[in-house]
Amino acid sequence: MHVAYRPEDLVAIVAAERTAGATTAIIRDIASLGSARAGDLSFLGNKKYRAEVAATKASVVLVPMDYEGEPQADQFFLFVTNPSAALALVCARIEQSLWPRPPAGVHPTAFVAPGARISPGATIGPLCVIEEEAVIGAGTVLHASVQVGRGAQIGENCLILAGCIIGAACELRDRVRLQPGVVIGSDGFGYEFVDGRHEKVPQIGIVVVENDVEIGANSTIDRARFSRTVIGEGTKIDNLVQVGHNVVIGKHCILCAQVAIAGSATLEDYVVLGGQAAVAGHITVRKGTKAGGQTGIAFDTEPGSYLNGTPARPYMLDRRIEVLRQKLPELFKRVGFLEAELKKTSESAD
Amino acid sequence: MHVAYRPEDLVAIVAAERTAGATTAIIRDIASLGSARAGDLSFLGNKKYRAEVAATKASVVLVPMDYEGEPQADQFFLFVTNPSAALALVCARIEQSLWPRPPAGVHPTAFVAPGARISPGATIGPLCVIEEEAVIGAGTVLHASVQVGRGAQIGENCLILAGCIIGAACELRDRVRLQPGVVIGSDGFGYEFVDGRHEKVPQIGIVVVENDVEIGANSTIDRARFSRTVIGEGTKIDNLVQVGHNVVIGKHCILCAQVAIAGSATLEDYVVLGGQAAVAGHITVRKGTKAGGQTGIAFDTEPGSYLNGTPARPYMLDRRIEVLRQKLPELFKRVGFLEAELKKTSESAD
Amino acid sequence: MHVAYRPEDLVAIVAAERTAGATTAIIRDIASLGSARAGDLSFLGNKKYRAEVAATKASVVLVPMDYEGEPQADQFFLFVTNPSAALALVCARIEQSLWPRPPAGVHPTAFVAPGARISPGATIGPLCVIEEEAVIGAGTVLHASVQVGRGAQIGENCLILAGCIIGAACELRDRVRLQPGVVIGSDGFGYEFVDGRHEKVPQIGIVVVENDVEIGANSTIDRARFSRTVIGEGTKIDNLVQVGHNVVIGKHCILCAQVAIAGSATLEDYVVLGGQAAVAGHITVRKGTKAGGQTGIAFDTEPGSYLNGTPARPYMLDRRIEVLRQKLPELFKRVGFLEAELKKTSESAD
Repeated sequence: MHVAYRPEDLVAIVAAERTAGATTAIIRDIASLGSARAGDLSFLGNKKYRAEVAATKASVVLVPMDYEGEPQADQFFLFVTNPSAALALVCARIEQSLWPRPPAGVHPTAFVAPGARISPGATIGPLCVIEEEAVIGAGTVLHASVQVGRGAQIGENCLILAGCIIGAACELRDRVRLQPGVVIGSDGFGYEFVDGRHEKVPQIGIVVVENDVEIGANSTIDRARFSRTVIGEGTKIDNLVQVGHNVVIGKHCILCAQVAIAGSATLEDYVVLGGQAAVAGHITVRKGTKAGGQTGIAFDTEPGSYLNGTPARPYMLDRRIEVLRQKLPELFKRVGFLEAELKKTSESAD
Repeated sequence: MHVAYRPEDLVAIVAAERTAGATTAIIRDIASLGSARAGDLSFLGNKKYRAEVAATKASVVLVPMDYEGEPQADQFFLFVTNPSAALALVCARIEQSLWPRPPAGVHPTAFVAPGARISPGATIGPLCVIEEEAVIGAGTVLHASVQVGRGAQIGENCLILAGCIIGAACELRDRVRLQPGVVIGSDGFGYEFVDGRHEKVPQIGIVVVENDVEIGANSTIDRARFSRTVIGEGTKIDNLVQVGHNVVIGKHCILCAQVAIAGSATLEDYVVLGGQAAVAGHITVRKGTKAGGQTGIAFDTEPGSYLNGTPARPYMLDRRIEVLRQKLPELFKRVGFLEAELKKTSESAD
Repeated sequence: MHVAYRPEDLVAIVAAERTAGATTAIIRDIASLGSARAGDLSFLGNKKYRAEVAATKASVVLVPMDYEGEPQADQFFLFVTNPSAALALVCARIEQSLWPRPPAGVHPTAFVAPGARISPGATIGPLCVIEEEAVIGAGTVLHASVQVGRGAQIGENCLILAGCIIGAACELRDRVRLQPGVVIGSDGFGYEFVDGRHEKVPQIGIVVVENDVEIGANSTIDRARFSRTVIGEGTKIDNLVQVGHNVVIGKHCILCAQVAIAGSATLEDYVVLGGQAAVAGHITVRKGTKAGGQTGIAFDTEPGSYLNGTPARPYMLDRRIEVLRQKLPELFKRVGFLEAELKKTSESAD
């Protein structure tokens, strides 16, 4: 990173409520408490690392309001309500300086069909392909080699990274972010079995990605068989996630890496799925359901439930069963012993 | 969608065997029974939704021959043998009007090596790269930014969506469909462990994709170490699926999203694998084997078996064991009680 | 394949320690023992196939030093220490002739920003995009449509296949191989939950890929929140693998297809993870840990441990528990019988 902040710059950026100590260092990097060196900014984001503050070599440390230790020599503490959120403010500033927003306009190597409508405030990167009737809104930035299909619509202030493919007629609302290689609007996986062969069922619906959604690298969102596959406002999807046709995902959900949602499933708002979790087709995952990594959800869930395992069970039950499962060798022995005892008892009774 | 069908158009498209009722509506969209509005076409594809027909607001409904209810006012029923297949016929018609086949020819922004052989009946989209000695057959359409490696061969009437990568020397037969971002012919994952390091084993075989195969978005099919990785005729592969080197997949198989097939495994014909299922290397999955989602198959299977769980077990046994597993807390209690009883018995016997 | 080797060519390539028999065939292909025909080279790479050597139709067979059978008529045996490694030598030769290294230089259709620094010894393929301040070293080959972001650095003798995307400021050292569609430097998956919404945490760190790493098709490696995500020297990663932000992977690890490593996890050297295995965030997988396919590792592991299952357990314990789990129906019956017996005993005692 090529950054340089004076301690007083950081006070302003994070709007520190109070400070302690002082440093003459110029901040050029960010590091965890344990790995920080002089000239680094660090932060106490998780109480579990509280003891590391006293030993950190960071020149500036973001600490929570209730932190009680004193800074070392040439060390500066910034007290803030949420050190992690405060760090994000610094990082956002660095992000802007590292990767400034490219100027608006269409790169000369891009191919834009005559009937596409590109806002003069949009940026179309090198070697992008924008097909007929596609619409791209103001403030939206397409990095290199993005494909936008016929009639697709992208709203304002979206950020589409390199190599994304947005299929025909699909819609992205505003402030959508797609990491590299995302596919929106691939055909749903639908066939009719006729005379020993799988005949393709045409997939003529679309995908709608609502405001403030982010989708991770190489994830795939299938278009609906008809009607719409929907990713609700504010939902965040990690890398290599699969969303099947006609799935409807609510608002502010979290889908971790490699999750798979089978066709026509519904996720209500605030659902959180751990990595590699899967949801079967045609079921409803109710509001606020949480599931651990690798969980397999095959039935409708209760609102606010916390599930784990395959098949999915309530988290605490799953943990308890796992503990007992580890004791199966012991249980088999105990039952064998009981059988032997009973045999002795019945023989002595004879 | 920008479509408009009169009811009599639909009678013709689906070749309805008989009709009931009438409507003056023009059909502009398709929807499920529960969400349809006036002007929509709907269908009874699954008996479980039979009760919804009486209440649907759809103007035209595709119903099976044995459906007994009457249409509502301004509602038109089309009786067909298979409503789902009939709907597919309508969708196919809509698909053609929404996304007409592009004209044959090579887009001026594509790069085609001098020694590549492109049929005059093929369509090469914007910014495609076709390398030396590659062959592309009549009626085949490549969307934008498709890469075709040196000496790769693509047959007739294939549809290759944006961003697909077909490696050197690989072969696609006829009517193959690749959804966006598919990789055919990446190197197999093979190394020799020598002196503490993994030395790469060159992967010089190819991939052969037979007639009528479809492969989903961002799936990856590795080239063989030598010889061929094969995807058999009519097999359908969903998104984000991994097929290892030297795998041989039979005809008319179904691989759902995120399935992984390890190197040198064989799948015979008509195998069906649920999402996230996995097959270990060097084993044979026999004809007609079915496996549920997340199943892990580590041994040869019997023909026609239906498996579930990791490790894979016959489906009914797996279900039964799962039920018993839920009762483990109870079982431990019962054994504890037996032990206490037996202790009492033996003490009283003393 | 268009290759032709005389038997004596092969003796030289593999440096055979001794030979037996003779053949007049010209070798044009490679096949397994069971499927080989006249004119093929085969090899005994795995002792389990030893019996197949006597029946193989291969004209030339690579056999281990201790192999005791005799060649058939018109068949030639080459004795070598490691037949599999010897075959790799032949394959490497074939690879060079099939896919010769392209000449150095920038393809006229590539877009290279004025401030990028491309070694004169590097090859930049068709339609690549190299952004400002990117650096590409001598002997490195970029196939078609590779994206190299602002300030990214690629070392010497790397091979980057079609469609790879290397994000801004990321670093690839020397002899790194990326299969098609790899994404390096997508944003890590980090949000703060504020007022019912997930606010993005900027991800301003980088990815460092050390010497001799290979990464499989469509795999994704996230950039660090700050600091670095690291893939250690000699590590090999298969297709569709996810590596989260701030993960540090040691040297000479093996990650099979569809593995997922959650954020801030550490893998020490020589870790081997089977397909679809997952590692939770913030944990340490110690040196030499091995895990079977689909294993879920949620806690720090012991060095050299061999794990299986979800949650991960020592392999032998996991096998034993699985066997007992299959016997649960029997165990429930045995306990039921004990209860009935005890009831009888206690009744008769009354």
